[in-house]
Amino acid sequence: MIGAEPVDLQPIFYPKRIAIFGVTDTPDRVGYNILQSVLYGGFTGKVYPIHPRHQEVLGCKVYKSLADVPEPVDMAIICLNQHATVETIEICGRAGVKGAICSAGGFRETGEEGQTLERRLIETAEKYKLPIIGPNTLGMINNDGNFYSTFYPLNIPAGKVSVISQSGGMGLTFIHQAIDEGLGINKFIGVGNCSNVGFADCLDYLENDDSTQVIGIFIEGTSDAARFARTAGRVARRKPVVVYKAGRLKGADQYTQTHTGASAGSYQLYRDILHQHGVFTVDNISELVVACKALSLQPLPQGNRVGILTHTAGPAVVMIDRLKPAGCVIPALKDETISRVKQIIGVDDPPVVLQNPLDSAGLGFSRPIYGGLADAMLADENIDLLLAVYCLHQTWELPAAELISAYRKNNKPLIVNFVGNWQGCRPDQEFMQQAGVPLFTAPEKTAVAAAALVHYGIRQKGGDSSDSK
Amino acid sequence: MIGAEPVDLQPIFYPKRIAIFGVTDTPDRVGYNILQSVLYGGFTGKVYPIHPRHQEVLGCKVYKSLADVPEPVDMAIICLNQHATVETIEICGRAGVKGAICSAGGFRETGEEGQTLERRLIETAEKYKLPIIGPNTLGMINNDGNFYSTFYPLNIPAGKVSVISQSGGMGLTFIHQAIDEGLGINKFIGVGNCSNVGFADCLDYLENDDSTQVIGIFIEGTSDAARFARTAGRVARRKPVVVYKAGRLKGADQYTQTHTGASAGSYQLYRDILHQHGVFTVDNISELVVACKALSLQPLPQGNRVGILTHTAGPAVVMIDRLKPAGCVIPALKDETISRVKQIIGVDDPPVVLQNPLDSAGLGFSRPIYGGLADAMLADENIDLLLAVYCLHQTWELPAAELISAYRKNNKPLIVNFVGNWQGCRPDQEFMQQAGVPLFTAPEKTAVAAAALVHYGIRQKGGDSSDSK
Repeated sequence: MIGAEPVDLQPIFYPKRIAIFGVTDTPDRVGYNILQSVLYGGFTGKVYPIHPRHQEVLGCKVYKSLADVPEPVDMAIICLNQHATVETIEICGRAGVKGAICSAGGFRETGEEGQTLERRLIETAEKYKLPIIGPNTLGMINNDGNFYSTFYPLNIPAGKVSVISQSGGMGLTFIHQAIDEGLGINKFIGVGNCSNVGFADCLDYLENDDSTQVIGIFIEGTSDAARFARTAGRVARRKPVVVYKAGRLKGADQYTQTHTGASAGSYQLYRDILHQHGVFTVDNISELVVACKALSLQPLPQGNRVGILTHTAGPAVVMIDRLKPAGCVIPALKDETISRVKQIIGVDDPPVVLQNPLDSAGLGFSRPIYGGLADAMLADENIDLLLAVYCLHQTWELPAAELISAYRKNNKPLIVNFVGNWQGCRPDQEFMQQAGVPLFTAPEKTAVAAAALVHYGIRQKGGDSSDSK
Repeated sequence: MIGAEPVDLQPIFYPKRIAIFGVTDTPDRVGYNILQSVLYGGFTGKVYPIHPRHQEVLGCKVYKSLADVPEPVDMAIICLNQHATVETIEICGRAGVKGAICSAGGFRETGEEGQTLERRLIETAEKYKLPIIGPNTLGMINNDGNFYSTFYPLNIPAGKVSVISQSGGMGLTFIHQAIDEGLGINKFIGVGNCSNVGFADCLDYLENDDSTQVIGIFIEGTSDAARFARTAGRVARRKPVVVYKAGRLKGADQYTQTHTGASAGSYQLYRDILHQHGVFTVDNISELVVACKALSLQPLPQGNRVGILTHTAGPAVVMIDRLKPAGCVIPALKDETISRVKQIIGVDDPPVVLQNPLDSAGLGFSRPIYGGLADAMLADENIDLLLAVYCLHQTWELPAAELISAYRKNNKPLIVNFVGNWQGCRPDQEFMQQAGVPLFTAPEKTAVAAAALVHYGIRQKGGDSSDSK
C-alpha cells in the first residue's frame, strides 16, 4: 500500500524501458550482476545503465544520469547504497518512473538510524505514488516477460507458479529446488523489507495475473499479519496459495528483526489464522516446492479419498502417517475393482492382500500389470486421487508410459513416487511432467503433494478444509 | 535371537560360498534379479545357483539341488515361495548352512495361515541355530565384502554408514538418496519380518563391526521395543545411531501389520524411550540420510554452541528454528573475533551487524573474505561447530577450497550449505566431501545435520543430551 492506496505493480513486472542505477564493471558487485541478470534473462525492452564515471559495461552504453537517458523509463533498478537509494527515489519520482527495485540493505533491519532512513524512503515514494520492491531485496523475476532483476543471474524454466519470498536466500533455495524438481516459475518477488509493497500487495497483483496459477510464499513475519492472512485467504478462493512460515522462536524473532526488520510473530498463531482462512501451510522449503508443483500440474481431486498403489509397503506406511492428519482417508476398494485386480494379476488367489493401499509385491514388477492396476484404482468410484509407488530397477524400465495412459483415461489426479536417484529418474520426471503427472522420489514429498491437492479440492467444492493441514 | 541365544551374523555378511535357491531365467523375477545382483555387485566368493530344471542362468551353471553342489556352502539365499522356503530352511539346516536370506512374502503379514507358517519357519531354523534375514525382505548388502543380495541390482559407493530397514522400499529410498548425497554405505540389512534376526540382533552385530561407524535405522514397529531401545542406547555409546520411526497412527498400525506383521506401537512412546536411551531420532528419510552423512564425515563437536556464517539471512532464520529446539545455542562472538572480522572485511564501520549469525551480505561474495570469516568464526572459543551458507552464482566459483582450508586449520566441525541446484553443486559436493566436509543445499537439512553432531558430541562428553532432539 502507498499510504492508504493500492499499488499498481504492472510497470514493475512488465516494464518496457528500465534504468539501472549503480552499474559497475566489477564482477562481484550487485551493480554488475543485476545488469548481467537482465541481459542473460533475455529482456527484450530497452535497458539504460547509469553510472557517473563508466562508459560501457557488459557491452551496454552507460549514461551519466537519468537526465541523460534519451527517453522516459517505466522502471528503475537501484543498486546504490542506502543513502543514495533514497535520493535516487526522489529523482525517479520526479521523472515519472512508475516503479523501483531497491537492492540496498542498511535500512530498518540495522537499527534506529536505518529505520529513520527507511521512513524517508517510504515518504519520498509516497509523494510520487511510486511502488518499491524492497529495499534489502534479491530483486524480482517475471518469466512471463523474460525480465530478471535478481543479482544472481538466472534462467529458469517458465511455468505457472509464482513465488513471494521475504528472504533472498530462501527464494534462491526455492528456485534451485524448483530447477531440480522440473518446476517452472512464472514470477518471483523478493519483498525484502516490504517498505510500501508487502505480501498482501503482491497477492492482490497475482490474484489477477492470468499467467499465475499457483502462489508459493516464504514469510518470516509482517507488520500487518491480519491483512496478509485475509488477502491470502481471499486469493486462495481463486487459485491455490501455499505458505511456509519461518521464524518460529523468540530467539529467531530477535534475529529476523535484523534481517528484514519484521517481527516474526507467533508461529502457531500465523498457522492457525492461515488455516482459518483456508490457506495450505507447509513446514519446509522442500514441501513448498512439492506442493506448488503438484498444484500446478494436476487437476484438483473431487474429495479426500486417496488410493495408494505400490509394490513395496513401507512408503505407503510413511505416506499414511502424513495423509491422515491432513484430512485424507484411505477408503476400501469397491468389489468390482477387486475383481478387476484379480483379473489383471491373472491369479485367483493371489499371494497379496487385496486392499487399499494395494501392495502388488513382485506381481507389480510387470509394467503392463502395474499400469492395469493403476487404471483399475483410478477408475474406482471410491477413489479421488491415486498415489503410485514404483522402484527404479536396473533391468527394466519404469512404468511411465503406462501411468500416463491410465491418467489420461480416467482424468483423476495421479502423483507418482518413483523410488530412485536423480540420474535414474530425471528422464522419467521430464517425460511424465510433460504429460502433467508430477513425479517425486520420497514418500514424504508425495504425501504433502497429495495433501495440498486434497486441501484445495475440498475448498473448491465448498467443503470445510479446516481439518486438513 | 534364536530361542534365547544370540545369533552369529558373520556368515551372512561375509560368506565365502553361497547357494541361491530358485534362480530363474525370467528377468522380472526375484530369482533372476538376486543372481544378477550378486554378480553385478562384484562378489568374489563362489556362487551356486540352484533350480531343478534350468542348466545355466546369466552365464552361471545351475545345480539341480543343494546335494549336487560340490562343496559345503556358508549361506543360502532363498527365492522360493513361502511354503518351499520353509522346506528349504530344513534342507539348509541339515547341510550345515550358517545363515539364510528369505525373500518370500506370504508369512505373518498375510494373516493366520501365514503366522502358522512363519512359526514353522522359526522352529525349523531354531533346530539348526540358523539365522534368517527376513522373510519378506529386499535382502542385504555388505559393501565391505562386495556382497549384494537385494533383488534390485545395485552398486553403491562404499562408506562408513550401515543401515537397518524394516521396509525394502524405504531402504531403497535411503540408498538412492544416499547416492544423490554422495554418502557411502557399508552394510544394508532389510530385516523384513524379523523372524529370528531383529533390529537388536543387527545392532549387536554392527556394534562390533569395525567398518561401520554410523548406524541408520528405519523402523515401523517391533515385537520387542524395549530390547530394541535398550540395545540402540547401548550401541549409541560406541557409535552414533539415528532412528526414523514410521507408523505413527492407529490406522497406519493396521496397515503395518499387513506389511511385516509387526505392530507399529505408539510413535511418541518410541521416541520418548529412544531419547531416554540417548538415541537421535529424525522425522523423515531425508533427515535420516542427512544425519548419517554428517556423522560419518565430521568429528563430533565439543559442545552445543553453533556459529552461523552467511551472506543471506533467511536460511539462518530457518536453521535457528530447528537448532534451538534440538538443544543448540547460538552464542555471541568473542571481541577478538569481531575485531578480526572488521580487519578481514577491511571496513571500520561495516554496513552489516557483527553478531552470530554473521550475515556478511554483499561483502561476503568475495571468496577470500568469506574464507577468512569462516576461519575467524571457527577459531572463536565460543563456537563448537560452524554452519556456512553461500549461494551458487553464475559468475564466480563457490568458496569450496577456502572452506576446506579453514576447516583443516581449526579442526572443528563444519557443515556447508550451498544454495544451489544439483548440477551446480554436485562437483563441489564431491570435492568437499573428499575433504570430509558435508555439503547440503537446504537449510532444514543442514540444521538436522548440526543437531545430530551436537547430540552425539554432548553424549560423548558424558553430558545429558536428553534436551536435544
